[in-house]
Amino acid sequence: MTDKVYKLIEVVGSSTANIEDAIQSAIARASKSVRQMRWFEVVETRGSIENTRVTHWQVTLKIGFTLED
Amino acid sequence: MTDKVYKLIEVVGSSTANIEDAIQSAIARASKSVRQMRWFEVVETRGSIENTRVTHWQVTLKIGFTLED
Amino acid sequence: MTDKVYKLIEVVGSSTANIEDAIQSAIARASKSVRQMRWFEVVETRGSIENTRVTHWQVTLKIGFTLED
Amino acid sequence: MTDKVYKLIEVVGSSTANIEDAIQSAIARASKSVRQMRWFEVVETRGSIENTRVTHWQVTLKIGFTLED
Amino acid sequence: MTDKVYKLIEVVGSSTANIEDAIQSAIARASKSVRQMRWFEVVETRGSIENTRVTHWQVTLKIGFTLED
Amino acid sequence: MTDKVYKLIEVVGSSTANIEDAIQSAIARASKSVRQMRWFEVVETRGSIENTRVTHWQVTLKIGFTLED
Amino acid sequence: MTDKVYKLIEVVGSSTANIEDAIQSAIARASKSVRQMRWFEVVETRGSIENTRVTHWQVTLKIGFTLED
Amino acid sequence: MTDKVYKLIEVVGSSTANIEDAIQSAIARASKSVRQMRWFEVVETRGSIENTRVTHWQVTLKIGFTLED
Amino acid sequence: MTDKVYKLIEVVGSSTANIEDAIQSAIARASKSVRQMRWFEVVETRGSIENTRVTHWQVTLKIGFTLED
Amino acid sequence: MTDKVYKLIEVVGSSTANIEDAIQSAIARASKSVRQMRWFEVVETRGSIENTRVTHWQVTLKIGFTLED
Amino acid sequence: MTDKVYKLIEVVGSSTANIEDAIQSAIARASKSVRQMRWFEVVETRGSIENTRVTHWQVTLKIGFTLED
Amino acid sequence: MTDKVYKLIEVVGSSTANIEDAIQSAIARASKSVRQMRWFEVVETRGSIENTRVTHWQVTLKIGFTLED
Repeated sequence: MTDKVYKLIEVVGSSTANIEDAIQSAIARASKSVRQMRWFEVVETRGSIENTRVTHWQVTLKIGFTLED
Repeated sequence: MTDKVYKLIEVVGSSTANIEDAIQSAIARASKSVRQMRWFEVVETRGSIENTRVTHWQVTLKIGFTLED
Repeated sequence: MTDKVYKLIEVVGSSTANIEDAIQSAIARASKSVRQMRWFEVVETRGSIENTRVTHWQVTLKIGFTLED
Repeated sequence: MTDKVYKLIEVVGSSTANIEDAIQSAIARASKSVRQMRWFEVVETRGSIENTRVTHWQVTLKIGFTLED
Repeated sequence: MTDKVYKLIEVVGSSTANIEDAIQSAIARASKSVRQMRWFEVVETRGSIENTRVTHWQVTLKIGFTLED
Repeated sequence: MTDKVYKLIEVVGSSTANIEDAIQSAIARASKSVRQMRWFEVVETRGSIENTRVTHWQVTLKIGFTLED
Repeated sequence: MTDKVYKLIEVVGSSTANIEDAIQSAIARASKSVRQMRWFEVVETRGSIENTRVTHWQVTLKIGFTLED
Repeated sequence: MTDKVYKLIEVVGSSTANIEDAIQSAIARASKSVRQMRWFEVVETRGSIENTRVTHWQVTLKIGFTLED
Repeated sequence: MTDKVYKLIEVVGSSTANIEDAIQSAIARASKSVRQMRWFEVVETRGSIENTRVTHWQVTLKIGFTLED
Repeated sequence: MTDKVYKLIEVVGSSTANIEDAIQSAIARASKSVRQMRWFEVVETRGSIENTRVTHWQVTLKIGFTLED
Repeated sequence: MTDKVYKLIEVVGSSTANIEDAIQSAIARASKSVRQMRWFEVVETRGSIENTRVTHWQVTLKIGFTLED
Repeated sequence: MTDKVYKLIEVVGSSTANIEDAIQSAIARASKSVRQMRWFEVVETRGSIENTRVTHWQVTLKIGFTLED
């Protein structure tokens, strides 16, 4: 690793399936405007409920990506 | 949204299957005494271990529900 | 329960599959040097990203085990 | 003060006016089922936005009340 | 342990004697309305002072109890 | 709600009037470059003092907005 | 700014009016013994309740002031 | 309660006896320079060990006292 | 003090008597495998309840000890 | 100071030299796309190790800059 | 160590040189009014930026000193 | 990266020179019993003071190392 600089952005992904899918959907959407994503960290896990069922898994995460020179 | 008031209760759900199922089981059980649940937030994720295997996934969560007028 | 004493160790497990599997892999590896593991607590959930896909789920957890007399 | 015991409940109040009003509305609603409320502590302050304006101030608070003998 | 669900309530106990007694008094009072209490966690320890002496030890704790099926 | 993805940005608003106005001024300024803001969360409340009077209320907040497809 | 040193003190202000007034009253009282106050940070917001109404807004804040050479 | 202002100071008390005594010793010592102490909050509990025995219980606490007009 | 290096381990002690005894029992047990323990810090205080009585006080603590050269 | 609005971005700088240099390198890189940076706050300090030596100091920081009208 | 009582004060030191120097300058200034300082703990590290360079390193620290009998 | 498992240990390094040197000394000492150290995270920065000068910089850090198969 050289003296790289990374930037962190905070996003919320959601999914009707599960926690992993909510994270993956946030990363997929972020990839439209950010390149060279390297890692993520989960900040918060929430969800919406309807009729006693979880309808959406919502995960807030920080995504780190390389700032190119 | 009108000027609603919500209440938060804290519960621990457990499951032999996975994290999502532990959350869902807590919500299902809470629905016996609480109506109009709207969202949850994960507070803590733990589990019990026996013979090097996770036997129960245990998730502490807060559940928010509408206080009806 | 008698007046037992437990020790907590902190480990990071990783998996290409999902969060639960990363936790299980950490516990399986820890079992090589620690016996009588009883519970775990998730400290942090992270992951590595390549080409907009999560390649490894990485979970930091504390594992509690009984210190035998 | 004698050896009293208090209970804490967590509620979310909302208001179109301001933060103090959101807190007061939560306390007013809680008074329908809880008596002898003594103090509150703010846990979180949030709000909803529409067209660049805050439409609802939302305050999560804990309310402490005396458990009567 | 089966797939049980627990609920957590937050209470404040006080005592003129010591910290342990404040915790025990909160649990004793809670037992009037809650059954099957299993564990507690200390959230905060405070106290009131009069004439340079602690007059009441006040402990905020969460109490976990089994939600019966 | 569909499987939307949100982004969170962190801003500091200030006002000579009060806390609510500092929050509103941050949102108004953010609206120049961000659309579809949905909610905010207060991170920190500070202020500057001159001659024993608060001259500016300064509120750090996170603003969540929808990332359009 | 030169190489100044600041000191932080922690105070609790209260007011029957609102949060901003509780902060201002704490700063006004602190000015009797401290000079060159520059900023404050809110640590906690609480209040007392009587008959379902907030009677006092109580704000704990840290106040920073310049230590003169 | 009128619109009083309180100040908080942070002190560390120690005792060879127990936690309560360490707290009481800190309050007793603080009373030499501060009057009208009203409450304390425990910030941290530590201790020194010699030959596998706790030799001193050390408790960091905040003490709140009324600032007289 | 020279340029010493210390290591911290995390243990949970339990006692039927009180909090101080739970801490002391954890230190006594740790002394079987660790030498030159110098200090501890309380991380968490919990307990188990049976029939409305605390049966075990459980304290999680970090213990620091000197790494000998 | 007028009623300015600031934005905070989160970046990670790294350096083979020391902590201050890692911070400065992050600010230097951020200056390519952001103007009017005013302050930073350290969020986390980490580093990579090879052969028992720190090879890179890595500092996560938030940088605040003025949003121009 | 006897049953001593310590007091903690919170100060902010700044330096154009580096983090250690900012800490040392805060301690040097505090020594004008406080004697028998024994230890410090870093609370926060910040800095001011001008033209993409850190102009002042600002460190908030707590300083512990012995309260003499 | 394959599905590796890492372990984290917590150590305190000290140095009369500066913060970086305290970290490096902790890692050097840990290398006597741990191999394949990969990264560290700073948990806390403290120091001892004598006669208004910092005599030892003390840094608590977590060190992560690979658990070999």
